Amino acid sequence: MTAVGTVYLVGSGPGDPDLMTVKAARLLETADVVLHDKLPGPEILERIPEEKREDVGKRAGGEWTPQEYTNKRLVELAREGKTVVRLKGGDPFVFGRGGEEMEHLAAEGIPFEVVPGITSAIGGPGTAGIPVTHRDHASSVSFVTGHEDPTKEESAVNWEALAATGGTLVVLMGVGKLPDYTAALRDAGMDPETPVALVERATWPEMRVATGTLETIVGVRDEAEIEPPAVTVVGEVAATRERVVEFLRNR
Amino acid sequence: MTAVGTVYLVGSGPGDPDLMTVKAARLLETADVVLHDKLPGPEILERIPEEKREDVGKRAGGEWTPQEYTNKRLVELAREGKTVVRLKGGDPFVFGRGGEEMEHLAAEGIPFEVVPGITSAIGGPGTAGIPVTHRDHASSVSFVTGHEDPTKEESAVNWEALAATGGTLVVLMGVGKLPDYTAALRDAGMDPETPVALVERATWPEMRVATGTLETIVGVRDEAEIEPPAVTVVGEVAATRERVVEFLRNR
Repeated sequence: MTAVGTVYLVGSGPGDPDLMTVKAARLLETADVVLHDKLPGPEILERIPEEKREDVGKRAGGEWTPQEYTNKRLVELAREGKTVVRLKGGDPFVFGRGGEEMEHLAAEGIPFEVVPGITSAIGGPGTAGIPVTHRDHASSVSFVTGHEDPTKEESAVNWEALAATGGTLVVLMGVGKLPDYTAALRDAGMDPETPVALVERATWPEMRVATGTLETIVGVRDEAEIEPPAVTVVGEVAATRERVVEFLRNR
Repeated sequence: MTAVGTVYLVGSGPGDPDLMTVKAARLLETADVVLHDKLPGPEILERIPEEKREDVGKRAGGEWTPQEYTNKRLVELAREGKTVVRLKGGDPFVFGRGGEEMEHLAAEGIPFEVVPGITSAIGGPGTAGIPVTHRDHASSVSFVTGHEDPTKEESAVNWEALAATGGTLVVLMGVGKLPDYTAALRDAGMDPETPVALVERATWPEMRVATGTLETIVGVRDEAEIEPPAVTVVGEVAATRERVVEFLRNR
């Protein structure tokens, strides 16, 4: 009988291959198979030998591979004795479905390891000169997704509570719904002059940043034609970039 | 005249050297000087050649190096033409003072680069088998520090608002004040049965995890003698660990 292989749930970081962890970079070389979608970004995916790659993201017809397929495939490959990397953009446990994959593996008795990655929610603003917390401006930071799971009964994000924290908000995958939640935050009493930044394709070679306020940012987005993937930073810290960008070097 | 050197504000990740980024690992080799405190942890600090290291953390007398000294020293070294790494535990912009250092550098005209790291607030729970978000349990996650700056006028963290988000809460440096904020969260109406986990020295060789509920966790902490540095995870996701730990492999 073949010994069962280990599955590594690996975060690839925001996209710059230099921002992968030492461990993630090594696992991409040593793994037998790498299951991935498009979120790790082109530079990282290009480094994985073609024969190891299995794309479990968007399919040719525009449909997504069902999560059940990915779960099943991970177990199947491990039972063949393979060393399997499940590569996820950012961190596997920040709005990925790493939690579900991990629970499925455990339920099936497959040994696994978690290899955290840098989430674009922190690394994106950071490389753009925006600290998500700041001693003078923000004692807390909250992350939320702009894509809510529509099948989840109690799906409504509590924007009122998030506004009331007084801390920084970072919205992942929040380009499309920007008008909705900026309105919700203003309705919750957040100052319309609150600085907002959009960071598109954070740390990728074609990274772009656009800034405005809770009131103006939708127009800024349209003008600059900001597209997914991008993170939205709402809070005083978003204004930091202006003060530092002249001396900020990237990559 | 000497050309001005570049300062790299670098996150070291939670402590396991394998969880440093490829870029951080390279910069530790190529930098002329590394300014650090104790937070990157012993395994990472040991890798930096002694002659490059400048400790700007706790001093012999038990006092902390003032932030003003660190700011000044970064500028001074860059003006000597040095390539300088300012190494910070976790990510430089998550409850470090990286934001202040960055603004000081820009104000002094020193070129700098930001190299994000994995925050222990995500990587700590993750390696312990706790996803900070989960499609079924948490649509948002908030990070807050247990050490509030006492000189900050509006220092009070809004625990009521944080409880009302309905998402996961992660408290960094939250061992000492655990009784205070668990009480505050219960007073804010959070279910006393809410799962809570403490992750001590996340990803270090001597990492430990203790779990309980909002009601029992203070007793659990005392029993297990959990000590700083540790992160506290409050929310349904904290119960995930139990379901997976049998098959979870670390490092």
